Formats: sequence, structure tokens, C-alpha cells
Amino acid sequence: MTYDNLTLHTDKYQINMMYAHWKQGTGDHRSVFDVYFRKLPFGNGFAVCAGLERVVRYIQGLSFGEEELVFLAEQEEAYDPAFLEELRAFRFSGDLYAMPEGTLVFPGEPIMRIEARVFEAHLIETAILNFVNYQTLIATKAARIRGVAGEDSLLEFGTRRAQEGDAAIWGARAAYVAGFDATSNVRAGMLFGIPVKGTHAHAWVQFHDDEQEAFDRYADSLPDGVTLLVDTYDTLRKGIPHAIATGLALRGRGKAMKGIRLDSGDLAYLSKQARRMLDEAGLHDVKIVASNDLDEHIIFNLKAQGAAIDIWGVGTQLITAADHPALGGVYKLVARERNGTYDPVIKISSNPEKVTTPGIKDVYRIMNASTGKAEADYIMLKDEGAIDGTPLRLFDPVHPYLRKIVDNYIAFPLLQPVFHDGELTYRLPSLAEIRTYHREQLEQFWPEYLRKLNPERYPVDLSEEVWQLKQSLLQKHRA
Amino acid sequence: MTYDNLTLHTDKYQINMMYAHWKQGTGDHRSVFDVYFRKLPFGNGFAVCAGLERVVRYIQGLSFGEEELVFLAEQEEAYDPAFLEELRAFRFSGDLYAMPEGTLVFPGEPIMRIEARVFEAHLIETAILNFVNYQTLIATKAARIRGVAGEDSLLEFGTRRAQEGDAAIWGARAAYVAGFDATSNVRAGMLFGIPVKGTHAHAWVQFHDDEQEAFDRYADSLPDGVTLLVDTYDTLRKGIPHAIATGLALRGRGKAMKGIRLDSGDLAYLSKQARRMLDEAGLHDVKIVASNDLDEHIIFNLKAQGAAIDIWGVGTQLITAADHPALGGVYKLVARERNGTYDPVIKISSNPEKVTTPGIKDVYRIMNASTGKAEADYIMLKDEGAIDGTPLRLFDPVHPYLRKIVDNYIAFPLLQPVFHDGELTYRLPSLAEIRTYHREQLEQFWPEYLRKLNPERYPVDLSEEVWQLKQSLLQKHRA
Repeated sequence: MTYDNLTLHTDKYQINMMYAHWKQGTGDHRSVFDVYFRKLPFGNGFAVCAGLERVVRYIQGLSFGEEELVFLAEQEEAYDPAFLEELRAFRFSGDLYAMPEGTLVFPGEPIMRIEARVFEAHLIETAILNFVNYQTLIATKAARIRGVAGEDSLLEFGTRRAQEGDAAIWGARAAYVAGFDATSNVRAGMLFGIPVKGTHAHAWVQFHDDEQEAFDRYADSLPDGVTLLVDTYDTLRKGIPHAIATGLALRGRGKAMKGIRLDSGDLAYLSKQARRMLDEAGLHDVKIVASNDLDEHIIFNLKAQGAAIDIWGVGTQLITAADHPALGGVYKLVARERNGTYDPVIKISSNPEKVTTPGIKDVYRIMNASTGKAEADYIMLKDEGAIDGTPLRLFDPVHPYLRKIVDNYIAFPLLQPVFHDGELTYRLPSLAEIRTYHREQLEQFWPEYLRKLNPERYPVDLSEEVWQLKQSLLQKHRA
Repeated sequence: MTYDNLTLHTDKYQINMMYAHWKQGTGDHRSVFDVYFRKLPFGNGFAVCAGLERVVRYIQGLSFGEEELVFLAEQEEAYDPAFLEELRAFRFSGDLYAMPEGTLVFPGEPIMRIEARVFEAHLIETAILNFVNYQTLIATKAARIRGVAGEDSLLEFGTRRAQEGDAAIWGARAAYVAGFDATSNVRAGMLFGIPVKGTHAHAWVQFHDDEQEAFDRYADSLPDGVTLLVDTYDTLRKGIPHAIATGLALRGRGKAMKGIRLDSGDLAYLSKQARRMLDEAGLHDVKIVASNDLDEHIIFNLKAQGAAIDIWGVGTQLITAADHPALGGVYKLVARERNGTYDPVIKISSNPEKVTTPGIKDVYRIMNASTGKAEADYIMLKDEGAIDGTPLRLFDPVHPYLRKIVDNYIAFPLLQPVFHDGELTYRLPSLAEIRTYHREQLEQFWPEYLRKLNPERYPVDLSEEVWQLKQSLLQKHRA
């Protein structure tokens, strides 16, 4: 089982379209695809781009091995053997542009652009969407939780409820991108360099004859910073008093208990009682960790109730994005080669939001030079050249009468070159760099765009040329 | 990056508990853990067990390599180097019992039981829950969709919206276990032997100068059974007429178009119009495939409206289990070794449903010998021996006054031996066998337990001995 080879991690129709292009002699025609999503999850005002590192490794690893080719040869489509030989030589030779991980992104703007032989561009659609949709979704959910947690520590605890193995580790990474402090998943820690944290399970306590013995033995084994789970039998009458006894004994040996953990019950009430009991025992430095189906709403409410919680362990709700478990990112053809030049193309839909925006486009973030804050994202055709600093007319594509002139701005291009002619030209940043970049991104936006509930809609505007192109193609096809 | 080594796919606290047991000299004590869930997802009346094959491969692959050991050596816990040497020699040497994949399972009954050195049992908790929770969730969702689809074909189309790579392929497999007919994911097809299906994308049409040319070229490339996507520009005025022209041309060449696909718009209306248009053209054998955020509710309603859909492509809602994206399966200590014998243990909770059921237990499905239908699942202590056919007093653990005597029954043990002393003793069935077994399972239940909305609650009963044991441990800890 060549589990690690992701080359066939694609939809069957991609292989069929590759085959049809090969049969028709059109496989070498270049094509341009945009990756974007139409709707923000969780009612949030932004999403946090993630998945690029995974996409880069995936593209570098593309290779049809013997097992893949034998499997394809057995399909009912009865592919021509010469096609399979073509696949054997396959490598990605195109260009990829992408927004860096950690970027704040918005509906309708390309977060990736693929320029490649259509033969190649089809193969990679499915996996790119699979990776980018999930990782962006989890980074966005994590950013919401970070937004309410302030400076508190946030731990990702979700592996056991994650949707299979990859979600656990790439979800842990996405959460870390958006400001989580650690994960419980040791493999994610090893693969990505994320700090790894953990306490103990109820089973540790149940395994011993009594809870005090269990706590003392755990502290004896891990004296440098133990956190004790106090809700196995009775939190207030047994668990916390036992933990305090262990903590005082540790102190007598010159060591310090790090924390206690609450995993059930009324976390507001119990945490305040726990804080009082710990403080009365002189254990002011012992932190209180809480877990149990937490999300941004529960954390927000617990904080409003004055819960004495220092560290939040977040599992199911984060790792599955439970209230909105899929981001609907799509991969749409926007231009195709004809006789050496690119023709823009459109897809019509009876649902106006599903009409695509044609043409090869760049995305700029327009920053107000006085305030340093983002004013809008601006999509223009690559052909229009770079933005030159002259006054810019911003233009709402849904409500064209909403216009605004900006001058005194700085325009940052958001799509970075990643692959050129199949070669990686992008230096993948470290996770630490991505986290810093993400924090800087947040500082560039007014808080009205960032709030958890009913955020202001951030403008994503089209250049006049893009808008005119879209209108003309719409009219052509409706005619 | 040793991506394939899942040995550290576990929570940090498992490693810490292993370390503490090793330090305290208790690591060799045997322990017994149950895997079970407390609540059914989707308001369904049953769940469909899945994940065992994945768990078996995972356990067989457990091995701490150099990279894993170096990573652990760098953790803040400062593990004793002799512990890391112990890990280097690690292999699973315990016993695992499990319900076969495809079994209908219910809340509160063990779907797996692990008997092993506590040192080993801790390591494997997280990954087992990660795999079994997700795969059981998706098989259950798929069973609901199969329940409303009748004999229609069901295609799993979810990869692009799945929660990362593993969810896409193991979710496709779980859907196939519960009666789906094919997947779009080629890699899932190759790894598991699932049929793979696909049509083409909108991009195929957009790439060509007009839709008719696009359809003709596609049919020319894949003449044996092409399905054409008809909603790129205008389904009724362009897409279907163009597809009909292609289908008639194919027929002129002795070939047959297989289907057309609707991916947007009013599927009830469009499918009926499409059927009429195809029939009027004499294309009675051309099937209609529909997709677009389908789930069991939408399919049920479309069928009630007389939609002329033959084949359903189901994506996001299935692969993410969107209306209930996590199964809360847990792994709980139920017995521990003391001086060569097992002591049952309990975990108390202020939430009564979270109190565990102590002891080493077997699960029997009690079948009425006259009707051949399942009467109840019956949990008894392993020590009670096998069921001998004498009248059985069924006993509701939540409402103990609900009792019932059954005689004339057949009792099937549900937990099968899988690993013994670390050796695989179970023949992993083929996917075809699992599908057949699952269909047979469904036939063993009255339809009242199987219906989609407000199903009758199927009884999961405790033996008198299990109940008494639970009560006595509860009283001991409350004293």
C-alpha cells in the first residue's frame, strides 16, 4: 500500500479530462485556474490562509508509480497505454502563485493562481482544495478562539475527535499558525516543531487505590511541572484538596506543581473555587487549565463570568470546525491559451454569486499610508501592470454604485510566486515566521473587521477593467 | 519527515503516563479498557462500526524510530534515557477484541476491548479513537443516506471538502462499507478496491469554444460510457440539448451515452424536464446524475417530489458529517491488575451518563429464534461464562424497573478476538464481505429501529451482575 504517494489523491474526472485532452491533442494548452471561496465560515469577518506548505510538498512529490499505473490500466475507461506512459513521465512544470500562510483573506479573491498545461492543472485541483479548504477553515476557527482568549494560553487537544489522522496533525498546525500555543499531538509536534503539552487521563487516577496516591506518584515521576486532573471522583471535596496536598509536598522538595485541570462540571464556579482554595494554600503560581467542549462562545462567556481559568484546552469544536465543518473553496478556469495568447473565460450560473470572475488577476492590499490600516483588497488584471500610486477608484462588484477614490496608499501584492516552470522559487517560511506574519496581519485591520459577532464587511473590489471584462463575457453568453 | 510512522500519533499525556508507570514500576500491570460512545449522531437509531482495519494496521506498525526517540529526548519532561530505550523495544503484546466493521452498534456498549500492559494500553488510545470515531461517524451517515436512496446508485464525491487527506480516503471507504456504490477518489479506489467514478468539470466546457464542441470531443475521447455535465451555461436551453445531440451521434456510432449530470439549480424540476427531453429523443437508457450539497434530507425530499434522478453524488454533507461532525467515542479503564487478578474500576461524574460501567464485559446480540430479529444487546461479565440458552432477564440500566424475560433466543457474541498476545488472530474480511455482513445486519433489525426520523430506542441491557457491580462501586466511592 503506497500510502505516501498522493499522485492519485484526485477525483476520477480529473484523470478522464487529462485523458480527453491527451486524445484531442489539447493537453499542452496552458490554462489559468483561480482558487477562492465564496462565503466566510462561522459568521467571521475574515479567513486565515493555510495549507501552502502541504501543497508545495504534494506538488514536489507528484509521480505516477507502477502501482498507480497498473490501477489506472484496469479502469473501465480502457485508457490507451500510450497515455499511461505519458503519466509515467509526469511532473508539474507550471507556475503557482499563492498568498502566504497566515494572510487574512476574503471571499471572492484568488488565494492561489495556477498557470500550467491544462493536462497538469486538472490533476492537482482536488488535492489542493482538500488541503487548503481544511487548513484555512481550522486556522480561521483558531483565530476566532484566539480573538476571545486574549493573552491566555491555548492548547489544541482535538486528535481523538478529529476527522482521521491527517486532520489531527494539519489541524494542529493550522491552529498554531493562528495563535494557539501548543498541541497535545506528539506527532504534530515532531513533524512541525509545535510545542507539545499534556497532563494525565482519568485512567491514571482509576489505576491507583486512591487519588492522593495517584497524584503523589505522578508528581514523583514528573516533578518538573506536573498538572493534575482533579475531576475523577469529586472535584471540590477530593480532587482539589488532593492536588493541593501534592503541590505542597512538591514545594517541600523544592519543586513546583504547574497546574490543575478541570474537565467537567461548571467551569465558572469550579475554577473560582479552585483558585480560592489554591491561593489559601499559598499555591498562587499554580495555573488552572480547563477543557470540555470549549469554543469561542463558551470561552467568551466563561471569561465574562470571571472564571479563574489561565489555560484553555480546546478539542472537538476547533479540530472539526463543528459549527461550519467545510470551507467551500473552489478551483475555477479563468483563462485558456489560444494560439499563444490567453483568452479569459467565464462560468455562468443561475446563482449570481457562482458566476466566475474571468481573466488572469493579481490581488493587492491597499493600505492607507497615514493610518497603516488596510482599506480594501483590489483585484486587477495582470495585463494592467503594477499599481503606480496614482489615485485608485475602488469599486464594489456587487453594488457598483459604491465607489471611492483613494490616494496616499501603499499597495502590497498578496499573491507570491511559489513555483515557476515547475521549480520551487519560494522560500517556505518557518512556522515561527508564519505566526509573526499572521499577528502583523491582524494589526493591519481595524477591529471592526475582526470582531467575532457581526463584523463589518471588508471591501474586495474589482478594477474597472476586470468588471468590464466580466460584463462583456456575461453578455456574450446570455446572447 | 517520517510521515507514515504513526507511533507518536498520540496525546502527550499518554507518553507522560507511560513514563510515570515506568518510573513507578507499574507499567507491566495489565489493564482493560473499553471503547464506546454515549450518544448516537444525527438522531439516528444506530451507528455502523468502522475503523478496525485501520486500527489493525496501525497496531502492527507501532515502532519508535530514531526520529521519534530524538524528539522525545528533547521534551521539557527530561525523560530518563533508559525509558527511551524501553520505547525502542516497544511492540504491542496485548489482546484486542472488536466488533467487526459493518456491525450495527449502540450507545454504552463496548465496540472494542483492550487488555494489555497499562504501558501499552495508554499509547494506543488516541489513535484508536481518532480512527474509530471518524470512520464510524461516516459509515453511520452513509447508512442514513442509503436508507433513503433505496436502490439508487450512490457516489461519494467529497474529497475536495473533506477534512484533509486521510478523511477523504477513509471516509470513502466507510461510505462504501455502509452501501455507497463508488467514490470519486482514485487513491481510495486503488488502496481499498472501491469502484471509482467520475464525469467532467465545468472547466472542460469552458476550455472549448462552445459546449457542443466540448461534449463531442469528450464523447469522442471516452466513447464507452460518457456522462456529460450540462449546467455550465444554461441547463435547459443549451446543456441538455447539446448532450442529446452528442448522445444521438454516439448512438449513430454504435456507442451509448451513459448519463447527464445536474450540479446546480432546482434538481426536482430540472431532472423531470431532462428526463422528458431525453425520452423524447429516444435516449431512455441515459441516466440522470445529480449533485450539489445533497444529504439524506434533500434526497428524501427530491424523491418525494418525483425527481427523475437515478444516481446521487454526495459530497460535503457526507464526508464531513456536517450536521454532527464528531462522534464522542471514549476509551475508559474498566479493570486493572492487582496481584494477578483483575479489579474492576469506575469513573464517577456529576453527569450520570458519564459514569463508566466497570468490569471485563462481553456483548451479545439476543436474537429472537422465531422472528430472526434482534431483541436487545446484552452486556455481561466475562466471568459469568457464556450464555447457555436459559431464559434471560433483560434489564434497562437507566430505568431498572423496565424488565423483560426472553427465552427461545440465539445469542451472538459481538466482540471478536483480533489480537492475542500481540499476534493478529483475526482474518481481516474483504470489503465485499464487510458490505454483505452490513446488509445482513440491517435485515436483523425491525424497521422501527432503522428509520431516519425518531427511531425507536434499541435496548442495550446489563446483566444483573454488571448492574450490581456498578452500584457497589458507586456506593463505595460516594461513601
